Amino acid sequence: MSQEARERAVLAAVRERRQQVNDAIDDDLPVAEPERLYEASRYILEAGGKRLRPAVLLLTAEALADTSDTPPYREFPDCIGGHVDVMSAAVSIEVIQSFTLIHDDIMDDDDLRRGSPAVHREYDTETAILAGDTLYSKAFEIMLETGAPPERGLRAMRTLAETCTHICEGQAMDIDFETRGDVVTDEYLEMVELKTAVLYAAAATLPGLLLSADEETVEALYNYGLRVGQAFQIQDDVLDLTVPSAELGKQRGSDLVEDKTTIITLHAAEHGVDVDGLLDAEDPADVTEAAVQAAVQALQDAGSIQYASDLAEDLVEEGKAHLEVLPENEARHRLEQIADYLIERGY
Amino acid sequence: MSQEARERAVLAAVRERRQQVNDAIDDDLPVAEPERLYEASRYILEAGGKRLRPAVLLLTAEALADTSDTPPYREFPDCIGGHVDVMSAAVSIEVIQSFTLIHDDIMDDDDLRRGSPAVHREYDTETAILAGDTLYSKAFEIMLETGAPPERGLRAMRTLAETCTHICEGQAMDIDFETRGDVVTDEYLEMVELKTAVLYAAAATLPGLLLSADEETVEALYNYGLRVGQAFQIQDDVLDLTVPSAELGKQRGSDLVEDKTTIITLHAAEHGVDVDGLLDAEDPADVTEAAVQAAVQALQDAGSIQYASDLAEDLVEEGKAHLEVLPENEARHRLEQIADYLIERGY
Repeated sequence: MSQEARERAVLAAVRERRQQVNDAIDDDLPVAEPERLYEASRYILEAGGKRLRPAVLLLTAEALADTSDTPPYREFPDCIGGHVDVMSAAVSIEVIQSFTLIHDDIMDDDDLRRGSPAVHREYDTETAILAGDTLYSKAFEIMLETGAPPERGLRAMRTLAETCTHICEGQAMDIDFETRGDVVTDEYLEMVELKTAVLYAAAATLPGLLLSADEETVEALYNYGLRVGQAFQIQDDVLDLTVPSAELGKQRGSDLVEDKTTIITLHAAEHGVDVDGLLDAEDPADVTEAAVQAAVQALQDAGSIQYASDLAEDLVEEGKAHLEVLPENEARHRLEQIADYLIERGY
Repeated sequence: MSQEARERAVLAAVRERRQQVNDAIDDDLPVAEPERLYEASRYILEAGGKRLRPAVLLLTAEALADTSDTPPYREFPDCIGGHVDVMSAAVSIEVIQSFTLIHDDIMDDDDLRRGSPAVHREYDTETAILAGDTLYSKAFEIMLETGAPPERGLRAMRTLAETCTHICEGQAMDIDFETRGDVVTDEYLEMVELKTAVLYAAAATLPGLLLSADEETVEALYNYGLRVGQAFQIQDDVLDLTVPSAELGKQRGSDLVEDKTTIITLHAAEHGVDVDGLLDAEDPADVTEAAVQAAVQALQDAGSIQYASDLAEDLVEEGKAHLEVLPENEARHRLEQIADYLIERGY
């Protein structure tokens, strides 16, 4: 299948599930009192998003079920004759993702998210902190609604809690890296694993836990999510340098301007590039396109962008290999394609 | 028993348990990597605090156990022959309390907490947001360590998640009240129930859930916590006006300066007092002691402070009455005394 055909297939698979996920979000996270709090909590969720993580979760459930018909997500057959609401788990994961975006935007002082004002700009910082905190506990409440037997329900809660702790640890590492000059590649990959990849890992693992798959399968699904999630973040780092600003929705090269440590800057520094000197404007708005182009050229000459792309590709291959525990079926094939798509996507 | 003797007994009971709670916090929330994040997360917990909520939780467990010896909290006998680690639940509740303090201090832009700099002052706002977020998920992780059978463990998780959502809703209402002129008493009491009382209710209920008490007992314990928690907050409002600044650890009358809605200002406004005009300085530091005294006198003349004290006393009596579901023993007696103490305390 060509890259283009694969992309179409992935986007179709994600789109088919997106509407159901959006409907489920409306059901599981209604606007309650106090209204302003819940409106702020739902603001990013309503601004769009591909719902990639819920799609991974639902497709994993489908792959495990191994039938040609897609069973209803709210009453999904488990591996031992029962039924589980896997959609609640999918919503819970998206709600956690949304909470982290709201708080991250405050911490990074970012004004825009998905083309709309960030929550702390549309509302205010107090409301944004509180909206994130509300989504946080709501995600746990929603995860309690899977109807899985208590033992599995508890494992799902543990996965959710540990995942959230890891995300906080990863974000703390990322902030810390901004003022450190001695970050090494392994630390960077650990940061990406904690900050970004564990949520993909949770999305892929939860159906295994909730539907009572065997431990080998659960572990393989977790590793699929981890590797694919790391690749996703590294591809984000590549795209920040290679996609025109208009398509990217933000200034190309913003990571360089903000002195963000990425796998690319780490490789470049190790290969003699003066990374701090590549772009030294205070404000992304002051950076000319020519200056960005020159910086990107320097990184390309050092082989750093290719290095990152190759690494992302290796991680995706490693991730896909873990899917071999699943029966061969269309859903598994889509999970493989999503992995490829994450590093082939243009933005 | 005189008020003084009762206060001594309560403080002794709380103190006896505080060291064990502090040791358990060290065990359950060790400083992990990234160190700075965990140090910031533990900062308020290490700054002190009476550990009132954990004391309520542990005493409720003891009252339910109804033995003259206190069983070890980490292996506490349940009502049907098993054992549960109730200390984990106590730590979890204190960790949640600490998370809310960190985020509240950011939202209220308060500089001091328990006589030390607030976390966002000692560290920075980014770290404080993240420290609160870390405590949030850690509280859920710690609650998973009670060793209770899965069904009870899940109910504890549900109580914790719903409690956190309520606290956010209450805080949102409190912020909303600052810019509204038409708040009524019932709304205020609902805000206090959500923002403050539900955590006391959770503390009192969790041993019932974890030790498998009957539903009538569980419900009564919840109502004990709710009423006592509301009384606690109303007493805080009274103390803000009646205790000298030096003892209070902050400017007396700060609620008036900050235009906070309290049960006292609501009563005063209903009785013809121009509450907004009582103290109209921009900065608490500009307010003279004489101005505060005059404002307090006006509220006293309107009967508003007495009204609040009477209401707190009624709530405490109502709360204590719910304890009748417990066997008569020393721990139950201490829970009654704690309720009295919360409205008799000087600060």
